[in-house]
Amino acid sequence: MKLSKDHKILIVGLGLLGGSYAKALTKQGFYVTAITRSQSSIDYAMSEKIIAKGSAFVDEALVKEADIVVFALYPHIFIDWIRENQKLFKSGAIITDVTGVKESIVGTIQGMLRSDVEFIAAHPMAGREVYGVQNSDDRIFKGANYVVTPSAKNTPDAIELCRDLGATLGFAKVSELSPEEHDKIIAFVSQLTHCIAISLMTCQTTERLEDYTGDSFRDLTRIARLNEDMWTELFLINRDALLHQLTLFEGELNHLRSMLETKDVDGLKEMMRYSTARRALFDKKI
Amino acid sequence: MKLSKDHKILIVGLGLLGGSYAKALTKQGFYVTAITRSQSSIDYAMSEKIIAKGSAFVDEALVKEADIVVFALYPHIFIDWIRENQKLFKSGAIITDVTGVKESIVGTIQGMLRSDVEFIAAHPMAGREVYGVQNSDDRIFKGANYVVTPSAKNTPDAIELCRDLGATLGFAKVSELSPEEHDKIIAFVSQLTHCIAISLMTCQTTERLEDYTGDSFRDLTRIARLNEDMWTELFLINRDALLHQLTLFEGELNHLRSMLETKDVDGLKEMMRYSTARRALFDKKI
Repeated sequence: MKLSKDHKILIVGLGLLGGSYAKALTKQGFYVTAITRSQSSIDYAMSEKIIAKGSAFVDEALVKEADIVVFALYPHIFIDWIRENQKLFKSGAIITDVTGVKESIVGTIQGMLRSDVEFIAAHPMAGREVYGVQNSDDRIFKGANYVVTPSAKNTPDAIELCRDLGATLGFAKVSELSPEEHDKIIAFVSQLTHCIAISLMTCQTTERLEDYTGDSFRDLTRIARLNEDMWTELFLINRDALLHQLTLFEGELNHLRSMLETKDVDGLKEMMRYSTARRALFDKKI
Repeated sequence: MKLSKDHKILIVGLGLLGGSYAKALTKQGFYVTAITRSQSSIDYAMSEKIIAKGSAFVDEALVKEADIVVFALYPHIFIDWIRENQKLFKSGAIITDVTGVKESIVGTIQGMLRSDVEFIAAHPMAGREVYGVQNSDDRIFKGANYVVTPSAKNTPDAIELCRDLGATLGFAKVSELSPEEHDKIIAFVSQLTHCIAISLMTCQTTERLEDYTGDSFRDLTRIARLNEDMWTELFLINRDALLHQLTLFEGELNHLRSMLETKDVDGLKEMMRYSTARRALFDKKI
């Protein structure tokens, strides 16, 4: 099933990501509405014409008319929302999300959801170190990756619709992973990198360090500025996978350390050549 | 002593950094020449009018006329160059460099240099992950830090001239550190970050990882693409300081790991709040 302009799209949680979804979809002529806790976010989105309608409470009419509902909430709030309000969904509605961990979310939501509504999970791998609909910007999707994480319970129609949503939003690459595979990879590319950035930022208290730094340190710590509630929740939900990736990384760093200790010039150069060749794969394709 | 348009400036080593120095200085009306190994680099720099004159061998006339000589070479090549060619310097010439480690370089060069020539060391903390004069760009200095590292042997005049050179190049912040302090800090902000990026890039061999990644991983590994000869040399020259910083970082990462293992929500959040607050200091002031 392709995304169509006849589909009414409701965004629940109008922050940076939800707002960026709304901007991208409204620009392309979709009918987009929003439910979010803060009235000022709704007021801002209305005044900027990012959404057609919105509400700071769970407005039954908005939920009932939506063909597609995108959840951009913290995991535990997403689950509570579904528990309390799923009775309001239109029959046949497709639900998707932007959550950064998948296995437990997909299992929990699909396990409790009405049988005439389908949840197809996705992870838009884009973001910024700022928050709120006021900072939303659909250009963050350009060149970025979008991963759909279907389970055995999902239908080909819903998977196609969700992939089409990713392409419509402007992502450069849309792929599929199982929720389990996704969580293993995300523990590495996203959660481990945040652990590293945080530790790098807090392990040294030298004063005025900012006057003696270059872009290397700035780049490695950009994501050390983060929302502690969201990231603690994500870390703990995916704890085992993250601990495994920490072990892999620590082992590799320790290998580099041994080569330094033994002045293994050839070994160091070989590791750097490999890292240089492998890094070339990761440039954004813009 | 202030930098003056009467000063003839010779760049030895016309790569990315040397070329960016030449561009910035020529643009402001200075007389800039260059000596570098590759004739094509000289040809390029002449055709782009980045330098007034240049030579692919050690041209005595170019060295003899220079009031200021900037060395942008690998540390061991810099030392060899001084040993072989210092007899050519004009009496009273000021020599500076761009080397990323300082204690051993400053000691070695100052220990062997003619008494009528002064070496004042500096570290321009700017760079890119590409090489060669063809990629040189003086905009890399904008918003960046420049650190002068005088020893007890330096005169106030040479220190002032070197600081003025940093400001003239367009650096946002010019500061001073002793060579020893510099190397401790650089082991942290530059060398440790490169060790982390390399290890992150090589600890996982999952295929097609690039399709499932976001900007976090891209940012943390940008510098994993590096010149293995130069970085192995820098790591080994500053080995003890780097090993110390590795220990500090590993201890902090391990602390975070323990909090994950024990599900210490409050501890994790506190660490993230501290990292968020501290990171705010490091934004570039452009």
